[in-house]
Amino acid sequence: MTDYETFELGDVVLQSGLTLRSAKLVYKTYGELNDRRDNVIVFPTFFSSQHTANEPMIGHGMALDPGKYFIIVPNLFGNGLSSSPSNTPPPYDRARFPPITYHDNIVCQHRLVTEKFGIDRIALVCGFSMGAQQSYHWGAMFPDMVERIAPWCGSARTSPHNFVFLEGVKAALTADDAWNGGWYERQPAKGIRAMARVYAGWGPSQAFYREKVYSQLGFSSLEDYLITAWEGRFLEIDANDLLAMVATWQNGDISANSRYEGDFSKALGAIKAKAIVMPSQTDQYFPPRDNEIEVSQMPNAELRVIPSIWGHLAGGPGRNPEDTLFIDSALRELLAS
Amino acid sequence: MTDYETFELGDVVLQSGLTLRSAKLVYKTYGELNDRRDNVIVFPTFFSSQHTANEPMIGHGMALDPGKYFIIVPNLFGNGLSSSPSNTPPPYDRARFPPITYHDNIVCQHRLVTEKFGIDRIALVCGFSMGAQQSYHWGAMFPDMVERIAPWCGSARTSPHNFVFLEGVKAALTADDAWNGGWYERQPAKGIRAMARVYAGWGPSQAFYREKVYSQLGFSSLEDYLITAWEGRFLEIDANDLLAMVATWQNGDISANSRYEGDFSKALGAIKAKAIVMPSQTDQYFPPRDNEIEVSQMPNAELRVIPSIWGHLAGGPGRNPEDTLFIDSALRELLAS
Repeated sequence: MTDYETFELGDVVLQSGLTLRSAKLVYKTYGELNDRRDNVIVFPTFFSSQHTANEPMIGHGMALDPGKYFIIVPNLFGNGLSSSPSNTPPPYDRARFPPITYHDNIVCQHRLVTEKFGIDRIALVCGFSMGAQQSYHWGAMFPDMVERIAPWCGSARTSPHNFVFLEGVKAALTADDAWNGGWYERQPAKGIRAMARVYAGWGPSQAFYREKVYSQLGFSSLEDYLITAWEGRFLEIDANDLLAMVATWQNGDISANSRYEGDFSKALGAIKAKAIVMPSQTDQYFPPRDNEIEVSQMPNAELRVIPSIWGHLAGGPGRNPEDTLFIDSALRELLAS
Repeated sequence: MTDYETFELGDVVLQSGLTLRSAKLVYKTYGELNDRRDNVIVFPTFFSSQHTANEPMIGHGMALDPGKYFIIVPNLFGNGLSSSPSNTPPPYDRARFPPITYHDNIVCQHRLVTEKFGIDRIALVCGFSMGAQQSYHWGAMFPDMVERIAPWCGSARTSPHNFVFLEGVKAALTADDAWNGGWYERQPAKGIRAMARVYAGWGPSQAFYREKVYSQLGFSSLEDYLITAWEGRFLEIDANDLLAMVATWQNGDISANSRYEGDFSKALGAIKAKAIVMPSQTDQYFPPRDNEIEVSQMPNAELRVIPSIWGHLAGGPGRNPEDTLFIDSALRELLAS
C-alpha cells in the first residue's frame, strides 16, 4: 500500500538536452480542490526527504489547513519516489541518471497542476530548503500564476559558499571506493557515513551544539547523535539519489533558463508573488544575508528572520516546535493577505 | 640545509600514559635573547603548518620585532617536523603514533624554553588557531611565567561544533580505502582531496565566497581555488600527520589535566596573563561567541573581534594584509602594556 499517487509525465526533455523517458512525478494531496480551483497550495519537498516529511506543517488549525486548502506535495526528482537514479530503468539508471534542474522539476510540477487538476491560480508555493528553492523557481517561472511564495531556509540561487559546502558533502561520499563511480551493487556505506558526518557540522548551528540541544532531543551523547540522527538518516537513502539531489541543489538559479538568460536581478524582479522569505538566523549555508540581497530586488517581498539557534534545521517541518510555529504564523498571515 | 633546530626531548611520558621515545621538538628562533632573558615571545604553529608559516607576522617594525624580542616558534607535534607519525621510528610510527594533547605539547615547549634557554619569564605567547589554543594552554599551565597571551581565531576549549566539523574532515579522509587504517604505503590522495574540499567550506566565510575574494587572489575560478588552494595544500602533508593534529585539536581543553580536573571555569580564572583574544567576526568554527564566554571568566582579558569577511582565514599570518595589520596592532598594544 502506498500513500501517494503518480503522475505519468511521459518523455521529458530536460534543460540538459537529455530525455527522461516515462518520467514519473510522485505526489500526495491533502484536502479538496474547491469548485473555483482557487484554494491551491504547492509545497515541494526538501533534500533527502519525501512528501511525508512535510506533513508536520499540514494540519487542521494550522496555516496549511487541509480543511480549507488543496495542498499538493510534489516529490523532488531524485528523492527515490519521483524519477530517480534508484528507480529509473536502463539506460538512464544509476550513475547515468541525467542532471535535473529546478527548472525541470517545476516544469513537470506545473504540468501536474494544470494537466491533472486544471488549476490556473496557486494561492501559495512554500517550502523548506530545496523546497524553498523550488518556491522561488515557481515564482519566477510562473509569475502570473503564483499569488504568494514563502521560501524558508533557502535561496533563489545557490550561493558559491553553499556550492562549496556541497562539494565537501559529495567528496566525502565519493571518496569511498565502494561508490565505484555510481556503479555500486551495495550502498557505499562508508562514504555515506562520511558525508553524514560532514553534514552534521553544517545542519545545526554552533549554538545548537554548544547548548547540547541534541541531549534535550533524547540522544545519549554527541556521538550517539552523529550516528543515529545523521549516519542513520542518510544510510536509508540511495547514494546516487543523494548525489542527484545535490546536483539539482548546486545548480539552483532562478535565472538559469532561456527566459532570464542568467540575469538574476531580472528574474528576482519578475516575481510578482507576495513573498515572506524566512532564513534562520543561524543557518550556515543559507545565511540571512543571501536572502536579504534577494528580497531587496523583489517587488513584493519581506524578509523575516527565524530567531533560532537550530541553524538550518530551524526550518525542518516539525523539528523544533517554536520555529515551526514561527513559520506557521507567517504562512497564516501571508495567506490572509 | 635546514632553517631550524631540534631540541632532543628524550623519552616523553604523555597524558595518555604512552611514551614517545627520543621525542623531538623542532623550533626556530628569531632575534636575540637579552641579558635579562625577559624579551621572550613564544609563537606556536597552527594546523597543517610549520614554523615558516608564522613568519609573515615577524619582522622589523612589526609587533613581533626580532630586533627587540627573542621569538621562539615551536613546531606542533604531528606537523611533520617535530615528532610526527611520518617521522617517528617503529613501534610508534604511522597509525601507531600516540595521541598527543596540547598539554603534552606545552610541557615540552616549556622544557625547551627553560632547559635550553634558561628562560623563566615569557613576555607573550601568541598564535593563530591551534597556535591560539596553545597560547591559552600556556597561560593556564604556567600562569606565573606567562605575562601576556594573544590567541586569535582559537579557543581555550574545542567546542562541540568545532569537534563535529573535524569529525567531517576525518571521515572524508578516512573514507578512502587507500588510507588503510593509516597503514598506507602511498598517500591516500583521494581521501586527502575529499577532506580538503570539506575544509574549503569551513575556512573562509560565506561572504568571502559571495564576494569572490578568491578571484582577487589570482585564482581563475572557484574550482581552481578548490583544487589549488585546498587540495594542493593538504596533499603536501602526510595523512597520518593531518589526523594526529586533528586529534590534538579535537581534544583541546585547558582544564583537561590533573591541575584543573576538568573545571574549565577554574582554568580560565587561573590565567593571570593580560590577554587580548581576537576571534574573526566571520569564523565558522571558532566563532566570537565561544571566546566571549571564555573572556568573561578570565581576570585580565579583552575580547577584540577582527572585522573581517575572511572567516577563519582572517587570522592566517600574512593572508589578508588588513587583518594581519589588525592583529599586529593589537600585539603591539599588548606588548607595550
